[in-house]
Amino acid sequence: MKAKELMDKEFVYLNCDDNVVEVSKVMEEIRRFTCPVVNDNKQLVGWITSFDITKGLREGNEKIKEIMSSYEEITTIHEDAPARLAVVLTANNKFVTVPVINDDNQVIGMIRSCDIVELLSELYDIKVYKLYEAMQHQLKGVTWEELMSASALVSKKTTGVKISPEDYEANIMNATFGEAIWATGGLEKFFAGLISVGEMVIARKVGKARR
Amino acid sequence: MKAKELMDKEFVYLNCDDNVVEVSKVMEEIRRFTCPVVNDNKQLVGWITSFDITKGLREGNEKIKEIMSSYEEITTIHEDAPARLAVVLTANNKFVTVPVINDDNQVIGMIRSCDIVELLSELYDIKVYKLYEAMQHQLKGVTWEELMSASALVSKKTTGVKISPEDYEANIMNATFGEAIWATGGLEKFFAGLISVGEMVIARKVGKARR
Repeated sequence: MKAKELMDKEFVYLNCDDNVVEVSKVMEEIRRFTCPVVNDNKQLVGWITSFDITKGLREGNEKIKEIMSSYEEITTIHEDAPARLAVVLTANNKFVTVPVINDDNQVIGMIRSCDIVELLSELYDIKVYKLYEAMQHQLKGVTWEELMSASALVSKKTTGVKISPEDYEANIMNATFGEAIWATGGLEKFFAGLISVGEMVIARKVGKARR
Repeated sequence: MKAKELMDKEFVYLNCDDNVVEVSKVMEEIRRFTCPVVNDNKQLVGWITSFDITKGLREGNEKIKEIMSSYEEITTIHEDAPARLAVVLTANNKFVTVPVINDDNQVIGMIRSCDIVELLSELYDIKVYKLYEAMQHQLKGVTWEELMSASALVSKKTTGVKISPEDYEANIMNATFGEAIWATGGLEKFFAGLISVGEMVIARKVGKARR
């Protein structure tokens, strides 16, 4: 996934000569704490945050160019860079927004932290039973009941608590991938549990085929 | 994971009678676009964003209570609520910050979208080979070479492109879980591929044991 696939194309360009008071009204209206400042060719030349605006209003600055951060201070991401880079930049620098630029240094979009949260949270919201369905689909000949039965056994071995295949099934129907990772203590452990289930049903399947 | 485990405890409380100009300086200094307004008992009574501040500065308001959003308009999260709820609230409403409250309606922390990005991105940054290590650990008796050899075969079957076990190993050493999910077309597909590898090595292992 590239940066341009994650970016928000709806944003407002500011101009160096825009009026600070007018810009403050626009930012309130579109509810954006940050805006790129561009030249006539839409190339990035500066950056404005609400902090610049409040300071500018207090100190009576008139034009955006008087209060903006200069180009050198702005962290950008190229449209073809991996989206992951935007995630890393946002996480490490606590950015609210990262501007996306093309080869000509034109601003073509903005990647916002809330958009990243939306993207990343989709993964966490996948239901665990979807992974079991994928497993069943992959392991041709294994029934859903065999999977649940093996899972209940593995769960008992891991947690020490007895659980029926039916209760196990009810659990994974509601649980999300995110919850399962937190509950098992991390992706590797969650994954090891699933492999353990796979091992059990495959061994049974191979055993059956040989009888 | 609970909301309180994800929240940032460092934030600034505002008071209804605080001066708008002074608050604007504080928010610039701590670089926060949002702040909770509390009473003497630290209970949440209002909410301030940089948009309220710019409007207040423009219109000459003096006190925070004149410009803040009222309690009824604020979305909060209880300290013991699942952290996942904060993620959903942030993603769905494009929030920058969600205040965390206790049973007494006191603000005890703030969950910021960039903190959520940091948390979620940790999962994406796990290296794929860590999952293979977990698989190898789980499937006692299977060697790393057998895993790589099976993976190269599964990869060829899936993509149609021949790859050596050594090249496959080099790939997973660098690739992250996030990249792998994007490359394979989703968590379920990525997972199905791993199960397929598991199936192959387990079948070989069972076969060996029977010989």
